Amino acid sequence: MSGPNPAAPPLTLNRLSVYLRCLRQLEREGVARVSSRQLADRFHLSSAQIRKDLAHFGEFGVRGVGYEVSSLAGRLHSLLDLDQRHRLVIVGMGNLGSALARYFGFNDDSFEVVAGVDSSPGRVGERVASVLIEPFSELVRVVRDSAAEIGVITVPAEAAEAAYQGLLEAGVRAILNFAPVQLQERPGVRLKNVDMRIHLEEMSYFLGLP
Amino acid sequence: MSGPNPAAPPLTLNRLSVYLRCLRQLEREGVARVSSRQLADRFHLSSAQIRKDLAHFGEFGVRGVGYEVSSLAGRLHSLLDLDQRHRLVIVGMGNLGSALARYFGFNDDSFEVVAGVDSSPGRVGERVASVLIEPFSELVRVVRDSAAEIGVITVPAEAAEAAYQGLLEAGVRAILNFAPVQLQERPGVRLKNVDMRIHLEEMSYFLGLP
Repeated sequence: MSGPNPAAPPLTLNRLSVYLRCLRQLEREGVARVSSRQLADRFHLSSAQIRKDLAHFGEFGVRGVGYEVSSLAGRLHSLLDLDQRHRLVIVGMGNLGSALARYFGFNDDSFEVVAGVDSSPGRVGERVASVLIEPFSELVRVVRDSAAEIGVITVPAEAAEAAYQGLLEAGVRAILNFAPVQLQERPGVRLKNVDMRIHLEEMSYFLGLP
Repeated sequence: MSGPNPAAPPLTLNRLSVYLRCLRQLEREGVARVSSRQLADRFHLSSAQIRKDLAHFGEFGVRGVGYEVSSLAGRLHSLLDLDQRHRLVIVGMGNLGSALARYFGFNDDSFEVVAGVDSSPGRVGERVASVLIEPFSELVRVVRDSAAEIGVITVPAEAAEAAYQGLLEAGVRAILNFAPVQLQERPGVRLKNVDMRIHLEEMSYFLGLP
């Protein structure tokens, strides 16, 4: 693989994550090689899209032979920088923040929730899973002490901008926003607004089919 | 638009949801027309992909003129069956279920959380936002009484299969699974396993760039 390409758009990256999961599934089943066509048929993907996405990163299957499952999985794993362990700070330890502290903390070598802050004094000092809740006002120190590099915003909509500012001031440059408000990306910062309604809309479409 | 196409793959549908949000944003800004190129540049999308996705549903922009923003937004809204209000039941009213009851219940005409169940007797009778928690053992009755058509699974991994079975028995045929376990789709049922780690992997990729 030719190494990371800064131009890779988010939807391509999300597809790489999907391919990685499919390959891991095949690995568990003992499958050694797979063609783009087989991968597509098995997991309801597009074989042309698979070939295009992988070619974008310099990975080409061999005609009639396909891809070597474990090797391709390993390359995607590295490409997504999952060989490193990434440290997360959660801003807003209400229901969603607490759920994600457990969810992201479970059975994963690539991600670790190392800190959580909340603006409610009543929550400070509590533990959720392995996370000690600290005051939002101390976010800069918390990020420095924990060496967190990914920020997760799980505050209500009206507090999202302040949470975002706080993370930027603390030097966090990769931020997932779960608050139902569109924050604006800044230069040098990777911001993803996660919109969980998109999943509902996919369900809705199927319910609307005749 | 030629009407719903049963063959539309999930990733295409998710892109339609993204296009719809972009068009709504342009509407708020008073933009009347947009070309696929302008839409792509503005929102970091692929113009070829936009044209292909929309052509799949029989929607073609006019060369040199582009798409009429409000009209296209309205057609995507209908295509995704968002003119209907869809009723949700949440199975597992812990942190994640409670967070989603608030999140999906907020400011949306297309979706409504009408019921929530939990297997913990201590939670039954509580209210979260507008949702009264009922016993998991009564799921069939709860679904019948509430006319819920989308099921949302937010139980721990080890309880996910039972939650899925319960929803199938209750006749729910569109199911979002947030538990960190892959459930298997059945004929006639639309199942989406939501994997929130994919968002983290997108962040990870960017942190790994030189």
